[in-house]
Amino acid sequence: MSAIMLSGRELAAEIRTETAARAAALAEGGTPPKLVVVVATADESTAWYVRSIAGAAGKTGIVCDIADLGPDAAAEDIRGTLTSLSADPTVHGVILQTPLPPGVRQEEAAGAIASGKDVDGANPLSLGRLAAGLPAFAPATAEAVVTLLDHHGVELRGRHVAVVGRSTVVGKPVAHLLLDRDATVTVCHSRTRDLAAVTSTADVVVAAVGRTGLITPDHVRREAVVVDVGTNPTADGGLAGDVDPAVAEKAGALTPVPGGVGAVTTALLLRHTVRAADVLTAGHQMP
Amino acid sequence: MSAIMLSGRELAAEIRTETAARAAALAEGGTPPKLVVVVATADESTAWYVRSIAGAAGKTGIVCDIADLGPDAAAEDIRGTLTSLSADPTVHGVILQTPLPPGVRQEEAAGAIASGKDVDGANPLSLGRLAAGLPAFAPATAEAVVTLLDHHGVELRGRHVAVVGRSTVVGKPVAHLLLDRDATVTVCHSRTRDLAAVTSTADVVVAAVGRTGLITPDHVRREAVVVDVGTNPTADGGLAGDVDPAVAEKAGALTPVPGGVGAVTTALLLRHTVRAADVLTAGHQMP
Repeated sequence: MSAIMLSGRELAAEIRTETAARAAALAEGGTPPKLVVVVATADESTAWYVRSIAGAAGKTGIVCDIADLGPDAAAEDIRGTLTSLSADPTVHGVILQTPLPPGVRQEEAAGAIASGKDVDGANPLSLGRLAAGLPAFAPATAEAVVTLLDHHGVELRGRHVAVVGRSTVVGKPVAHLLLDRDATVTVCHSRTRDLAAVTSTADVVVAAVGRTGLITPDHVRREAVVVDVGTNPTADGGLAGDVDPAVAEKAGALTPVPGGVGAVTTALLLRHTVRAADVLTAGHQMP
Repeated sequence: MSAIMLSGRELAAEIRTETAARAAALAEGGTPPKLVVVVATADESTAWYVRSIAGAAGKTGIVCDIADLGPDAAAEDIRGTLTSLSADPTVHGVILQTPLPPGVRQEEAAGAIASGKDVDGANPLSLGRLAAGLPAFAPATAEAVVTLLDHHGVELRGRHVAVVGRSTVVGKPVAHLLLDRDATVTVCHSRTRDLAAVTSTADVVVAAVGRTGLITPDHVRREAVVVDVGTNPTADGGLAGDVDPAVAEKAGALTPVPGGVGAVTTALLLRHTVRAADVLTAGHQMP
């Protein structure tokens, strides 16, 4: 028996199509939606990832600029750039790419991104508003988890979800999104005693740790739904998830890597940018 | 066998003593610390509670004003008041008391409280910063839970804590504080299927629902530590917790109501106010 694969490709394509239509309408109205990715690293895999966002944006009719501040950028330069992009009326979405130079905290720096342009939900204000049930952009990866489960008709209400990982960009915001959907949520992490004992009681397991193959068949109960958020680089230049492929023999359903959560994440970043442009051109502002 | 009672009274007295000393030093330096509680309700039990805060503040050497906007105050009046108190250099702490008039969302209105004066952690920015591991005032009740457990030497690291209740003022922030202490945290709520099955696996149960006696012996495993955040009014004018008193026969330790979390909460509000005054008079500002 083998798990159903919960692909993200079809959903991502749907979101891109709908987003491209809206982007075209905005451009026709004289406001081409524009995303700026702020980069402050010489890391090659980051450069590759940012180019892939820019490529996807271009195909969707969204202008995507890369503001490369270099690997030695100071915290105040990064914040200054984010502040001026936040004030620039031609810019609708702003992403602060990690990693950042040593000593620059992403959570602190991202506080300079205006909420209404914070399309990857990196400003702590966005996370707080999300937790408080107020309108805000969620981090795209966290939203991709819930959107992908919805797309495949996985019920969340009243079910027990174990989130493995407590990062500010995935684990914590996905916990809030799941609570908002009436799931009972357990957040596990590196200090959790007997991780397998906890996760194997859950209906749904979300693995968001960044360690290849951490989640084995022992961590999952039979027929559980497993969401793999991991995107760990492999020696041969590919990607591996946080979930051991052998889990497919035990789980009821599993998201693939690549082609699962990651595919949806980029599409959601673009959707958020178009939504931000919609709101900003309508003259409203998120706080 | 009967549970150890984890009283909050001694801890509250300690915090008040330390806070009074600091308040006296600030007053001597020409800056008497000042707290303002904004009220917009005619509710009698709220008035009683606010007077009790003012009384405790007075005894600690903190000036406490009550800004009563009346039960018909509009959202913009409430936000306007919070904005001007945030700008007033003689004010160091600002609390927005609930309940609020129909149609006014506490989470939305509290966004007008400057972070540095948000001594009850009501601004969603404070919650987001807390979740992101950045300096911020936690809601006093949520912090009281963790502070009281620390005071009694209850280990949190690696232990499984079930938080019952997902409110913005208690359940969610206490979950973040517990995660920050390396606990594995499950958040349960009204839609949780078989609550007792979930909570009875936990080392520590935090009940923060507001329903008298919701947590019964069946919800708790033998020797568990139980924290009762409930303060439900009784017919005879007293207070009852969310935990059935019979739990004391099964749990290893239990916080009393009254005299547990609630006692510590007020003391922490005063400590926060003095800390805010310390920071503001030093010329620093929290974001």
